[in-house]
Amino acid sequence: MSMIVNRRDLDFVLYETLGLDKILESDRYADYDRESLDAIMDLCQTIAEDQFLPCAAKLDANEPKFVDGKVETISELKEAIAAYQEAGLCASAYDSDVGGMQLPWMMDQALNGMFVCANNPAHIYLFLTQGVANMLNACGSDELKRKYLPDLVDGNWFGTMCLSEPQAGSSLADIRTKADLNADGSYSISGTKMWISGGEQDITENIIHMVLAKIPGSPPGVKGISLFLVPKNRVNDDGSIGDFNNIALAGLNHKMGCRGATNCLLNFGESGDSIGYLVGEPNQGLANMFHMMNEARISVGMSAVMTGLGGYLYSLDYARNRPQGRPLVNRNPEDPQIMISEHADIKRMLMTQKAFIEGAQTLIYYCAELIDTKKLSDDKDQHQRIDLLLDLLTPICKSWPSEYCLEANKLAIQVLGGYGYTREYPVERLYRDNRLNHIHEGTWGIQGLDILGRKVRMHGGAAVSILRQEIQGTIDSASSHSELVSFCEQLGSSLLLVEETIDAVGKADDPSLALANATIFLDAMGHLVIAWMWLKQAVAALEGKQKGNTADDAFYEGKVSAMKFFFNYELPKIKPNLELVAQLDSTCYDLTAEQFLGV
Amino acid sequence: MSMIVNRRDLDFVLYETLGLDKILESDRYADYDRESLDAIMDLCQTIAEDQFLPCAAKLDANEPKFVDGKVETISELKEAIAAYQEAGLCASAYDSDVGGMQLPWMMDQALNGMFVCANNPAHIYLFLTQGVANMLNACGSDELKRKYLPDLVDGNWFGTMCLSEPQAGSSLADIRTKADLNADGSYSISGTKMWISGGEQDITENIIHMVLAKIPGSPPGVKGISLFLVPKNRVNDDGSIGDFNNIALAGLNHKMGCRGATNCLLNFGESGDSIGYLVGEPNQGLANMFHMMNEARISVGMSAVMTGLGGYLYSLDYARNRPQGRPLVNRNPEDPQIMISEHADIKRMLMTQKAFIEGAQTLIYYCAELIDTKKLSDDKDQHQRIDLLLDLLTPICKSWPSEYCLEANKLAIQVLGGYGYTREYPVERLYRDNRLNHIHEGTWGIQGLDILGRKVRMHGGAAVSILRQEIQGTIDSASSHSELVSFCEQLGSSLLLVEETIDAVGKADDPSLALANATIFLDAMGHLVIAWMWLKQAVAALEGKQKGNTADDAFYEGKVSAMKFFFNYELPKIKPNLELVAQLDSTCYDLTAEQFLGV
Repeated sequence: MSMIVNRRDLDFVLYETLGLDKILESDRYADYDRESLDAIMDLCQTIAEDQFLPCAAKLDANEPKFVDGKVETISELKEAIAAYQEAGLCASAYDSDVGGMQLPWMMDQALNGMFVCANNPAHIYLFLTQGVANMLNACGSDELKRKYLPDLVDGNWFGTMCLSEPQAGSSLADIRTKADLNADGSYSISGTKMWISGGEQDITENIIHMVLAKIPGSPPGVKGISLFLVPKNRVNDDGSIGDFNNIALAGLNHKMGCRGATNCLLNFGESGDSIGYLVGEPNQGLANMFHMMNEARISVGMSAVMTGLGGYLYSLDYARNRPQGRPLVNRNPEDPQIMISEHADIKRMLMTQKAFIEGAQTLIYYCAELIDTKKLSDDKDQHQRIDLLLDLLTPICKSWPSEYCLEANKLAIQVLGGYGYTREYPVERLYRDNRLNHIHEGTWGIQGLDILGRKVRMHGGAAVSILRQEIQGTIDSASSHSELVSFCEQLGSSLLLVEETIDAVGKADDPSLALANATIFLDAMGHLVIAWMWLKQAVAALEGKQKGNTADDAFYEGKVSAMKFFFNYELPKIKPNLELVAQLDSTCYDLTAEQFLGV
Repeated sequence: MSMIVNRRDLDFVLYETLGLDKILESDRYADYDRESLDAIMDLCQTIAEDQFLPCAAKLDANEPKFVDGKVETISELKEAIAAYQEAGLCASAYDSDVGGMQLPWMMDQALNGMFVCANNPAHIYLFLTQGVANMLNACGSDELKRKYLPDLVDGNWFGTMCLSEPQAGSSLADIRTKADLNADGSYSISGTKMWISGGEQDITENIIHMVLAKIPGSPPGVKGISLFLVPKNRVNDDGSIGDFNNIALAGLNHKMGCRGATNCLLNFGESGDSIGYLVGEPNQGLANMFHMMNEARISVGMSAVMTGLGGYLYSLDYARNRPQGRPLVNRNPEDPQIMISEHADIKRMLMTQKAFIEGAQTLIYYCAELIDTKKLSDDKDQHQRIDLLLDLLTPICKSWPSEYCLEANKLAIQVLGGYGYTREYPVERLYRDNRLNHIHEGTWGIQGLDILGRKVRMHGGAAVSILRQEIQGTIDSASSHSELVSFCEQLGSSLLLVEETIDAVGKADDPSLALANATIFLDAMGHLVIAWMWLKQAVAALEGKQKGNTADDAFYEGKVSAMKFFFNYELPKIKPNLELVAQLDSTCYDLTAEQFLGV
């Protein structure tokens, strides 16, 4: 079995639960049909399995080194990335007008997901580059696009996002990097940027940094932030590489996981001019940087899902092949041992992983489908509807997998026991890799504030109303299956509980107290949405079973079981949590810093 | 502030919540009073802070190496352990009749806890040695004790436990290591042992292995296992070191954390005789090895608590000194930033850590007090009562901290954000160290089977009855405080729920199905017991506040808040979990290995 993908499951999500086949019917994707997409997936799976997966452990054990102000990475990383680039996959995320493959975003996520599962740190370089190119394409001037976009699309150059500084991580209002206007219209950038993934590397001959900085005299806080394109090496008018742009690598951070992706402290303009170019309007930097924020945050969720999947597949394979112990009802030591996949608690740990990962995966693809659907529609009402729903679901896409697919990685270690705790097996590495996702692209706490403080309230609660309609649609289609009726009722009452909680919080006088338990709300609302995704899958599984061949019976039965698991073991947990949020519990909020220790 | 201990809290647990002062009144501890114990604690804190803590990160980054069949560890490890030994602390765990310090076990746990928090892998060598010496003292012949015990007690030699083999981890019935009787009464040991912590090292000149092996012709399974003392180097009759005993280091395991403690694959009797000596009677090996099992498992829980504490103290200190962001009600970027300890979600994460760690710590010391109390009593009924209660609480001591203090470590990383994800800060290392505790000394799943399959049922449920009486005693003393009345009711109804669940499970026809959700039961019962510990602490805090000086007000208020947090945020979670267990939910249990993936 593959250690990076369950193609049967992917087909089930994309074509049986969701409607990729319908998306493919549009003119926009006339170049593709299911067969051609399957061929692309085959190719990607081969490259990911042959080039990305085999060097993942070595890359972890031999993280990039800082030698004489430069970075050295292992050759296997460069070879893997070269294989990806040579297959033309760097262009997977763009439309054909800029030389891209013009794939549905669902498919872009699916094919890149396999690389993430195989070797997430290696994929981080590629993922960031796609984000930078999309941002440049959306906000940059024609001149900037002409000069920088083709090499980013082709993967000749990589890109980075330079937001944080040592004193300003989550609080971008407090960045200090400065952009001074030069006579020729360019800017001189000076300041220090921290946590820059891919900020320096020895893979591509140039690196295009997207840098947030302040033009002197601009308003304080986030309203005075502008976005600049700052190349590592300057680019001549003929496209050739010019002088070094004086961006100094001041140090590498040594991370818990994702070690193969460099994470850098960069000094701009320290030993000479670092020339940058304004992207979009002045003081619109944050808006421009956040242009692709929903997509970026959904992709972080996808990264969490895929890293969880790696642990699930490995631990499942291990459990089905590791003999140990005997059934509780027959302990006779002279009888052979059974596979540990037969022990009830191992089944529970595998099922928990399956329910978390496949549930979260469906949500990610559901949102990808929304993005694709919007692209195909001219209907402004539908656009608005999709935007609202995506805005509401994005914090869940970002945070729920970061929490629960990480928990899945923890359980994968447990399934392997002592072996799982060693670096000779991949599961502990996958845990370490995945621990990043709760931190970058907006921390867990920030996602909580975003959903409870903003998203459930915007346009008079319009997004929640749309969510209710969508969930009701699934309930309606599910309730014709007698096996699903009780789960429909449970989902309906859970939705009501979430709505009541939102109402209760909305009535609070103190806005800070209202949001004091926002993270717990986010967690509970995530459970609601994942339960919905499981009901969707259960409907598809029952329908698939009715019309399918019997060879798929075990697959479909497993799907229905996983739905039941999520509704029986997980969904009931939201009740005490939502009660706490609705009651505006202030136990933590009231605490002073001295009360923790008494000093 | 110290990064390894909150002495104020330790005093509160030992002397205000529990009764170490009363234990000290006995003749057995006539050499000690609170003042002398405080002085020992001072000394230990100094050594732990000056010698153990500073090299913890270096030990993690420079794990022991396998060079020419031998192990090399960094010099700082040897120096730290030498400081511990020179202070006479190796003798902390023993009575004076064998040259020990004859401390109450509560105090032994408290002083060793600081070393665990400072540098858990370094302490593992010391912890294992104490276990081996205690086992030898309890089960060994006078001759074996004369020859091996003094050097173990003094810490000149270290000890190991050799149970697992590559094909037999949790299933000891399946070990294959063989012990052939020699003419002189000794045995020749042959076989391979896996996961041997401290199995080889360059710290002491000899290593005393306690090895489980089978004498040919003995019964199959666990009934045919015997225990042997097998020295790395043979010991001459005059006590001097003799020939190498042919125990070959076949390899080191490279662990996720606790990297400073070697973990070895050992071959016995491969290149020559490995001579061993029977400890106790033949075929009683497992009983003898498990002689100290309650204490060993409680100590694992303590290790989880202390590793959690390290993350809590560090993240609290960080949060109180890291400016970032502004209050929700004033986002003016021109106003100064606030410390992140002022943000509600950071408070929640700190409070969660506090509630988990200080709750679990109280349970560990409560059990230590039971062990001390038993030692001081001649009353057989009291002995039986304590044994039953300890048997019931031990799986909780082992597992609950391994789960929730690990969760605390995860939150400590989150409080530090990106910094927490780097190895430049200790919190990610502490997570990795702590991940071990759910695996060794009986996995999480095994503890679940132990408590629901055996402990709640033994002697007709006698242990649960005793627990009820003890919890009721705390409720009685708490209910005189009006502030605590509602929490008394909540604890009472939670206890009832646990009892009802035990009854429901007891009526199941299928014993395998009855235990299918045992791990979830263990988790819920752990929450009940920790809630009880928090009510105990709240009573002590309110009484302390009544009679204390106002300088302690913040400390006591923090304790009452943490109790409220646990009752409001955590205890309600047990209801859906216990319902699931009581209903004998078979969703996972019914699953076949094929249904996970469909193949």
